[in-house]
Amino acid sequence: MRGLAQGYAPVQQSILGNVVTVSHLGLALVLPLTYPAGDAFRNGAGPELEDEGARVLDAVNTAVTRPAGSVDGLVELASADMAGVNALIAARMQSPVAVIPALADHLINAGGKRLRPLLTLASARLAGATDDSCHKLAAAVEFIHTATLLHDDVIDSSQLRRGKVAAHLIWGAPSSVLVGDYLFARAFELMVEAGSLVALDILAKASGVISEGEVLQLTRAHDLNLSQDVYLEIIRAKTAELFAAAAEAGAVCAGASEDRRRAMRSYGLNLGLAFQLVDDALDYGGATEDLGKNAGDDFREGKATLPLLLAIARTGEAETAFWERTIGRREQTDADFRRARDLIAQTGAAASTLDLAADFAREAKAALGPMDANGWRTALVDLADFAVSRRA
Amino acid sequence: MRGLAQGYAPVQQSILGNVVTVSHLGLALVLPLTYPAGDAFRNGAGPELEDEGARVLDAVNTAVTRPAGSVDGLVELASADMAGVNALIAARMQSPVAVIPALADHLINAGGKRLRPLLTLASARLAGATDDSCHKLAAAVEFIHTATLLHDDVIDSSQLRRGKVAAHLIWGAPSSVLVGDYLFARAFELMVEAGSLVALDILAKASGVISEGEVLQLTRAHDLNLSQDVYLEIIRAKTAELFAAAAEAGAVCAGASEDRRRAMRSYGLNLGLAFQLVDDALDYGGATEDLGKNAGDDFREGKATLPLLLAIARTGEAETAFWERTIGRREQTDADFRRARDLIAQTGAAASTLDLAADFAREAKAALGPMDANGWRTALVDLADFAVSRRA
Repeated sequence: MRGLAQGYAPVQQSILGNVVTVSHLGLALVLPLTYPAGDAFRNGAGPELEDEGARVLDAVNTAVTRPAGSVDGLVELASADMAGVNALIAARMQSPVAVIPALADHLINAGGKRLRPLLTLASARLAGATDDSCHKLAAAVEFIHTATLLHDDVIDSSQLRRGKVAAHLIWGAPSSVLVGDYLFARAFELMVEAGSLVALDILAKASGVISEGEVLQLTRAHDLNLSQDVYLEIIRAKTAELFAAAAEAGAVCAGASEDRRRAMRSYGLNLGLAFQLVDDALDYGGATEDLGKNAGDDFREGKATLPLLLAIARTGEAETAFWERTIGRREQTDADFRRARDLIAQTGAAASTLDLAADFAREAKAALGPMDANGWRTALVDLADFAVSRRA
Repeated sequence: MRGLAQGYAPVQQSILGNVVTVSHLGLALVLPLTYPAGDAFRNGAGPELEDEGARVLDAVNTAVTRPAGSVDGLVELASADMAGVNALIAARMQSPVAVIPALADHLINAGGKRLRPLLTLASARLAGATDDSCHKLAAAVEFIHTATLLHDDVIDSSQLRRGKVAAHLIWGAPSSVLVGDYLFARAFELMVEAGSLVALDILAKASGVISEGEVLQLTRAHDLNLSQDVYLEIIRAKTAELFAAAAEAGAVCAGASEDRRRAMRSYGLNLGLAFQLVDDALDYGGATEDLGKNAGDDFREGKATLPLLLAIARTGEAETAFWERTIGRREQTDADFRRARDLIAQTGAAASTLDLAADFAREAKAALGPMDANGWRTALVDLADFAVSRRA
């Protein structure tokens, strides 16, 4: 199978001096593991380049001038398609067992951006789809995503989702698990109706990879020694794989050639990685002083995301006791999150995370090379920029 | 969709005097709701027939002479096929994320009978399959079943499964949920490889119906007023549907004609109903004094199964307080299960449940009419008899 089975173990990593070179996902990255201590946090020089081709993540020295981007163009272009997809979603989550549509509706109509089905539609249109045959695949993609969210919220005992009380707190964890299963089954029914075994294969494999990524996160998430490459592997599996599959399935549905199908998959994968990295940075306030409404969740859960891992590595022994108490043992006071956030900002960990997201967004845009230059492609370029520039 | 959506609501039920006529699943049943009180339990006359076509469930007046049946003939015939299926199962539950194969193996190799994949294989061979192309579907059926068991055990907080400590008690509920999701995804990958969109459709729809049945059970299971038709709808959805789909998918895989495909589906559906009814009777000791190893689980969980529902109806006001305490409020002493078991035996509730199971087993055998008379068919007839005669 494609996915975690490839390149996950053994990890391609070489520790040379104070940097880790990660050859992963087709990118060579150099992430600075240590950083000059004390006040030098603010002005510290970045690590030396390991080799000519490697990128250095050192946001402190980098002038950040990124295109703002927007999702509006895509939403506008896809509005007629999305009306069809939304009607399918509403129809297929029905059941004579009343709890099922009630619970599903609570989450599905809570105002998510529906980026994944948008990606399927945009990919199909950009690949030349002239009819609505890809709507069913787009609805299936949203059902897979919804099922994943329902199970995630049970597993993480989350209190909120999309600004509303999490479904399992209203209907109970058993119902959330089972309605997730129901939506997953309905997704496969929709895919069968769409009639493409190739698209089915792509989304079935993606579903397996997502579960693998979730299990990996579960068993490693609170590990202060989590390597950055395992972190990247987790976000690739749990987030980017569905973006990749959504885009690839759209292209397949439109009958795209092999190279265009690969192009759309690459766009989706890199976009998904950028989105997740930015999510993880925003959880510590991102590059601004403004905190999003869910900021601090990862810290409270002791989740080892990249901003945290970089800050831990860069603060070194000076803060070992702080990280072990707050993340390792999850003993936290109200002031601890603010302190963690300050350390993440001062060490440039948040900025480095956003820089890496910007790199992936650039890769996403570059992947669109083989596609026609039209409004859909422009909208996808804007979406990649939006993934990095967004503030919430 | 086929399934709960059809015929579930509104319920086709007419209450006439002291019996309920249930027109359901193509059978007209008359289940006696009340029963002569006191000592007359043991010798009470059954209710009058509602109409000529209806069957009367009154085991007290029925001489039980049932063929013993066996699963051995099927296991023997299918041994080479099952070796192939077992190899697929072992290969496809692997993952570089070590928790996944460890958890999956704990359940998969705990010694289940693998009836469902056996059913797919037998159905395919009986329908004329000459190669091994149905092995992947059979493995997929077992993965769907395993995924369901993993989620069920989390939902019911079960302590034991197949005589071993339940997986969620070893690896935690989150891992059990996610490994269930993983196996479900792997099932669909296998189905894609099998290459039949029709078989995929059958098993995707069945997966949805199973989840619906589980949610219905969750919301109604402790309801002392659960009607017998809703009970039958629950066991049809949560158990019999996968038996039906397993058998139908095997026939489809072998390229069977429409009437043979329907025949195998009907065989599977009726067999599944018989199996679940016998399971529910065995939980109260069945027709014997011997208690199986899991006996009493349903009572402790306050699960409204047919033996209990019949006993509640037949004991009437004399035992209302007992049932409301032990099932309604689940306040139970050690002696209560023995008392419930005695009431279920004395009212003929257990025997009536087994009689109904025998009716379904008869329907299953009759359904094989359009199929060739050969060793596979004989083995399936024996399996239907075994479903009712087994003592564990």
